[in-house]
Amino acid sequence: MTVEESLIRTAVATWTINIDRATTLFAGASEAQLQQEIAPGKNRLIYLWGHLIAVHDRMLPLLGIGPRRYADLDAAFLEGADRAVDVSIGRDELAARWAATNGALQEAFDRFTAADWTARHTAVSEADFAANPLRNRLSVVLNRAAHVSYHLGQAALAPK
Amino acid sequence: MTVEESLIRTAVATWTINIDRATTLFAGASEAQLQQEIAPGKNRLIYLWGHLIAVHDRMLPLLGIGPRRYADLDAAFLEGADRAVDVSIGRDELAARWAATNGALQEAFDRFTAADWTARHTAVSEADFAANPLRNRLSVVLNRAAHVSYHLGQAALAPK
Repeated sequence: MTVEESLIRTAVATWTINIDRATTLFAGASEAQLQQEIAPGKNRLIYLWGHLIAVHDRMLPLLGIGPRRYADLDAAFLEGADRAVDVSIGRDELAARWAATNGALQEAFDRFTAADWTARHTAVSEADFAANPLRNRLSVVLNRAAHVSYHLGQAALAPK
Repeated sequence: MTVEESLIRTAVATWTINIDRATTLFAGASEAQLQQEIAPGKNRLIYLWGHLIAVHDRMLPLLGIGPRRYADLDAAFLEGADRAVDVSIGRDELAARWAATNGALQEAFDRFTAADWTARHTAVSEADFAANPLRNRLSVVLNRAAHVSYHLGQAALAPK
């Protein structure tokens, strides 16, 4: 394994480990558990899960992998606070979208070359990227891995 | 900037960004705020802060940077639950230790070479590292950056 491969595989493992933890927590929760608030008056588990799916869905175009699939989640899980929008989506559909989205991301991460990883993401212009070359695909993935962990810390507070 | 440098600087930036967020949140809190629980019956902010200092202090030997300095924090912030051990350490002392610990880590991260980053950390044997070469210094730092984010998510729930 080259040094480049080692750096990349280590970084991707950080993403994958956090996804696996979130899968255990959310996909392993019952419908009743998903309706529980992480603390009195705070977000429900189902909101955090839908929020992560919507954010990861947006990573597909951001990383140049493909178009979004679940923009219908944005109103309830990204733009609005929990309970601000009626949500009819159920547990099984969220589980399927969670698996499909992270599966598509992982498939791309496993084939990205070092040049792919250090190339700009699609939300930064060529000029801005020239000024700050750390605004690359890897920065997006590491930032989003930390974002998963941020909400895992909250989800861990929910009553068991 | 080489591809290796870009990968490494991007990963280190993930660490630094999360440390900066934690500094804003914890070092910017008043003594009264630090005593608040993140949610009823859950950890206080001061506990999360002391916990992160103790964990980061342990990174110094783990990454071969130097010896620990604050093992006296372990009983209250690492081994015991919040309030299980009387803590006499005050806000200013925690702020000084937080800055000193993360400063020592950042100084090392800024001089580590690609070979340093992909070398094993001190808690894995040479045999185990040969079997899994991703158990390197970079994995520790990315894992700990996600750990900071995990507790930031919790700290964000505390009453303002």
